[in-house]
Amino acid sequence: MQSATFNGSRKKSIVSVGGIEIGGDTLTIMAGPCAVESNEQTLRIAAAVFESGAQFFRGGAYKPRTSPYAFQGLEEEGLIILAEVRERFGLKIVTEAIDEKSLELVEQYADVIQIGTRNMENGALLRRAGRSCLPVLLKRGMSASVEEWLQAAECITSQGNPNVILCERGIRTFTQHSRNTLDLAVVPALQKSEIDFPVIVDPSHGTGKRFMVHPMARAGVAVGADGIIVDIHDRPEQALCDGEQALDFAEYNLMLKEVRAIHQVLNPVLAAA
Amino acid sequence: MQSATFNGSRKKSIVSVGGIEIGGDTLTIMAGPCAVESNEQTLRIAAAVFESGAQFFRGGAYKPRTSPYAFQGLEEEGLIILAEVRERFGLKIVTEAIDEKSLELVEQYADVIQIGTRNMENGALLRRAGRSCLPVLLKRGMSASVEEWLQAAECITSQGNPNVILCERGIRTFTQHSRNTLDLAVVPALQKSEIDFPVIVDPSHGTGKRFMVHPMARAGVAVGADGIIVDIHDRPEQALCDGEQALDFAEYNLMLKEVRAIHQVLNPVLAAA
Amino acid sequence: MQSATFNGSRKKSIVSVGGIEIGGDTLTIMAGPCAVESNEQTLRIAAAVFESGAQFFRGGAYKPRTSPYAFQGLEEEGLIILAEVRERFGLKIVTEAIDEKSLELVEQYADVIQIGTRNMENGALLRRAGRSCLPVLLKRGMSASVEEWLQAAECITSQGNPNVILCERGIRTFTQHSRNTLDLAVVPALQKSEIDFPVIVDPSHGTGKRFMVHPMARAGVAVGADGIIVDIHDRPEQALCDGEQALDFAEYNLMLKEVRAIHQVLNPVLAAA
Amino acid sequence: MQSATFNGSRKKSIVSVGGIEIGGDTLTIMAGPCAVESNEQTLRIAAAVFESGAQFFRGGAYKPRTSPYAFQGLEEEGLIILAEVRERFGLKIVTEAIDEKSLELVEQYADVIQIGTRNMENGALLRRAGRSCLPVLLKRGMSASVEEWLQAAECITSQGNPNVILCERGIRTFTQHSRNTLDLAVVPALQKSEIDFPVIVDPSHGTGKRFMVHPMARAGVAVGADGIIVDIHDRPEQALCDGEQALDFAEYNLMLKEVRAIHQVLNPVLAAA
Repeated sequence: MQSATFNGSRKKSIVSVGGIEIGGDTLTIMAGPCAVESNEQTLRIAAAVFESGAQFFRGGAYKPRTSPYAFQGLEEEGLIILAEVRERFGLKIVTEAIDEKSLELVEQYADVIQIGTRNMENGALLRRAGRSCLPVLLKRGMSASVEEWLQAAECITSQGNPNVILCERGIRTFTQHSRNTLDLAVVPALQKSEIDFPVIVDPSHGTGKRFMVHPMARAGVAVGADGIIVDIHDRPEQALCDGEQALDFAEYNLMLKEVRAIHQVLNPVLAAA
Repeated sequence: MQSATFNGSRKKSIVSVGGIEIGGDTLTIMAGPCAVESNEQTLRIAAAVFESGAQFFRGGAYKPRTSPYAFQGLEEEGLIILAEVRERFGLKIVTEAIDEKSLELVEQYADVIQIGTRNMENGALLRRAGRSCLPVLLKRGMSASVEEWLQAAECITSQGNPNVILCERGIRTFTQHSRNTLDLAVVPALQKSEIDFPVIVDPSHGTGKRFMVHPMARAGVAVGADGIIVDIHDRPEQALCDGEQALDFAEYNLMLKEVRAIHQVLNPVLAAA
Repeated sequence: MQSATFNGSRKKSIVSVGGIEIGGDTLTIMAGPCAVESNEQTLRIAAAVFESGAQFFRGGAYKPRTSPYAFQGLEEEGLIILAEVRERFGLKIVTEAIDEKSLELVEQYADVIQIGTRNMENGALLRRAGRSCLPVLLKRGMSASVEEWLQAAECITSQGNPNVILCERGIRTFTQHSRNTLDLAVVPALQKSEIDFPVIVDPSHGTGKRFMVHPMARAGVAVGADGIIVDIHDRPEQALCDGEQALDFAEYNLMLKEVRAIHQVLNPVLAAA
Repeated sequence: MQSATFNGSRKKSIVSVGGIEIGGDTLTIMAGPCAVESNEQTLRIAAAVFESGAQFFRGGAYKPRTSPYAFQGLEEEGLIILAEVRERFGLKIVTEAIDEKSLELVEQYADVIQIGTRNMENGALLRRAGRSCLPVLLKRGMSASVEEWLQAAECITSQGNPNVILCERGIRTFTQHSRNTLDLAVVPALQKSEIDFPVIVDPSHGTGKRFMVHPMARAGVAVGADGIIVDIHDRPEQALCDGEQALDFAEYNLMLKEVRAIHQVLNPVLAAA
C-alpha cells in the first residue's frame, strides 16, 4: 500500500480492485454511460471501453432521483447487465448505490461501490459502505468542504473498510458557463491532507458540457489526479441521462491519447521504461 | 386547507398538526435545544417554551453526523423524553429522522418529522416520509435551488403525504461573517410557486451566531414566513451541540415579543380582533 | 453623532445630510428611478416621492456600464434635472459617481455621492470621495467580505471625510430565483464591527424582481437597517433601466406603510411619542 | 492574426507584443514578483526569469489597495526599474495600471498594461486602455460571468485597441482550501465564444498557496490556455506582497519543464519540428 512520493503527483495510498491498482503508477480510466439503458447499448459501449484499454466500466443501475418522473434506472436488471460486461470483457464494474437496499445488491454484482454527490452526507449509507468488502468511490458533495469530504470518508473507514477513492465532480458556484465548477485545486489539497486517499476527477459531471470534457480531463490528469471517470455513449444525443455531456467514441479515444501522454510527462521514469 | 391571499404575506396551504395550523393566520413558533441532552435539560427548556406560548418543541434525538466522534444524539431515549414534553406541556414535537430506521421511531413519538439539510436529496428517506401519516418539515439543502427543493417536497407528496412544511436554513456562499447565508428572498419565491407549502425560517442554523438570531428572526417574519424555528438553551455555553447559536430564555422572549408585533403589522385584521 | 443603543437595532453613528439624519431614530427612505431619463419622468416620480414623505430622491445620471451599447445616463443634463427636484420638492439628492470626473460634477449638484458595487474597490474614486464635503453612500461589492467593505469605507474616511453610509445590495451566489442574494445578516455583523456606519438596504438591486422588493424591504427594516433605498417608476414596464425591479406608486406606498409600522415596533418609544 | 484551429487547444486570435506572439503556437510564460520592491530584488528575479526562457517579466509598481496601510507599490520608481529589466534582459514588461493616471505612466514604460480583478468593471479605466497603443492583459473580476468579462474586453476594443489578452485568476466561492477557485473550464468556454481572445491562467492568485501553484499551472496549460503568469521570488518568505504564493527559482524551473512538456503533448507538430 505504499509507493514513492515524487513532486506531489504520486499517491501514497493505493486501493487494489481485484489486482487493479488505483493510486499507483498507472493512470486509472473509468468510462461508460451515465445510465445502463439496455443490454445492447451497454455491451456496445463496453466493447469500446475494453478496446480503449480502460480498466473500469461505469454505468448507473440506480439513479439518485428525487423527481418521481425522471428515469430511475434499471435497478437489479441493470446490475445483471453490468455483471455480463465484467464477464465478457474483464472490466471492473463501478456503479452507484443510492441507499442501503441498493447497496446490498450492488455488492453482489459490482467491484466498486459509488456513493454519489447527493449522498455524501448520508451517514447510514456511508456506514453501510464501511461494512462492505468492496472499495468505495466517494463523490464530493456539491458544496462540501475538504474537511467534510474527508469526514465522510472517515465515516466509511471507521467501520472497517479502508478502501476509499475520492472523486471530485464539481462544486456549485455562481458561474453559468458550466453546470458545476470543477475544483481541481482540491487535488493537491487532498494530497497534502493526512490521510491520502486516491483521487479521481470527473470532467463529465464536473462541467455538464461535452466540449469541455476533453480539455478538463487533460487538466485533471495534469493536476495530478490518479485517474478520470468519464461519460461516453455511442449515441450521445439519444442517451436517457445526461447525454449533453457524454463523449462519443472518437472524442473519447482522442481524449485518452492526450491524457495518457500527459500522465507520462508527470511520470518520466514510466515513460522511459 | 385554504385561506385568503393578502399582499403576499398570507399562505394558501395550511398544514394541520393535531389541530394546530401551520400556514394560516397564526405565527408558528418552534423552539427548543439543538439536541436532547438529558431529561432535566429538556424539561427545563420545555417549560420555558410552554410559558412563551410557542406551539412546537424542537429538539434532536438523532444528529446527522458523518463524524463518528461527534455527539450522535440520545436516539430512542431522546424520543421518550420528547414524548414526556408533549404529555406534560401539550407542546407538539418536531424532531429529525436521519434514516428510514430512525423515521420508524420518530413516527411513534413525534408530531412532525424533520428532514435535515444533509438529507434533502435522500430519495429513500423522502419516499419513506411520504408514506407517513405525520407532516414533514423539509429543510432546504445547503446548495439547493428552489426547483430542487420543491422536487424533494414532491417526492414526499407523490407517495401520498400532502403535509409538507418547508424550512429555509441558509445556503453556502463565500461569506464568512455568518455560518450560512439566510436566503430570505426564497420565501416570496416559494409563495409564487405553483404548490404553495407553508414556509418556516430558521435564523439559528441560518446564521450560526447568537447575536444575529434575534434580528434575523424579525426579518424572517417580516418577509412573510409562516413561522420560525429557533435554538434555545438554558445554558447556551454548555450545550452539547451548536451552543454558539442558542438563545437564552431572556433573549428568546424579547425576540418573541418583537416577531409577534411584526406579524401583527402584516395581519392588521388579526391585530384589530 | 451619538444615540442610545437598544437591542442592536439602533445605530451609534449618525450622518447628517443638510439637517436630515441617517442612522438616528428616523427611518431613512430613498426612492426614485434607476436612471434619470427625462425632465418630465423625473419630476413626476419626484412628486410621488415627496408626497410619500421620503427624505431622499435617488436617480442615476451616470450609469456604470462596461457595455458601450447600454444607456449611459444623461450625465450633467441628468444632474441638472436632479437639482431641479431638490429645489422644487426639498428632497435630498443621492446619485452615483462612476469616476473622478463625474464625481466633480455630482459634488456640485447632489447631497450624497453614491459609489456603486462595481467601484467598491476603485481606490482612486474612493480616495477622491474621501476628499469631498458630501456624505458617501458606499454600496457593497458583489462578492465583498465585511472586512473588504469596511476597508473601502476606511479608504474614504482616511482622506478626511467621516460621513460614510453603507448599502447592502445583494451578493452573487449560486441561486437563480433572485438576481442577487440580499445578505441581511450583514446588518447585525456591521453593527457589531468597531466602526459603526449607518446601513441602508437596497431590496430592488438586491433581488432584481418586483414581487420580492416589498417583502425584502420589510425584512431589511426588521433586521435593523437604518433605511432602505428603492427603485420606483411611474411606468415600470417602460423604464430605460432595470424596469423589472421598479415598484409602481401604489406598491411603493403600500410598502412604505408596512416598513414604517415595522420600524415603530423596533422603536417603541418613538411610537409612543 | 490567424492560425489553424486544432483540437480546441489552438487560438485563432494572436496578440503581438513587439514581435512576441501571445495566442499562437508558443506557450507564453510571464513570471516575476508580485510587487517591484527594489532595484536589486527586481534584477535578481529578472535574471532568473530571463534564464528560464520566459518572454515576459511581470511585477507591480502600483498595487490596487483600498487599505491605506498596505504597501502601495513603488509607483514611477518601480516603472523605471521595470524599464531597466527590459533593457538589460530583453524581457517584455507586464505591469498593472490602477487608474487613468497610473496608466499614462505605465504606457511610457511597459509593453503590456495589466488591468486587475478589482478594476474589471472600471469603465473609465477600460476605455482609457482602449485608447492605448499597448496590448491589455484583462484579469477576470472575482465574481464575473463570461459575458461580463467579454463585455469588459469589448469596452476596450470598442475604443480602437483590439489587443486584449484575458487572464483567469480564480473566482470567489465557498471553498476555503484555496484563496480563490481557479475556474479552468472558463478556458474552453472562452474559446467557444465569438471573439476569441488569447487566454492566460494565473495559478498564483488563483490558489494563493505555493504548493498548489505548480500542479495548477500544469492544469492550466493542459486545459488549453495560451500561457501562464506566475509569481516568483528569490526569497518568498520575505516578499512584501503575497509571498505565501510565490515560487522560489527551483520550484519555478521544475514547473516550467513540466508545463512545456504538456504544451508539446497538445501541439505534436511543434514537438516533431
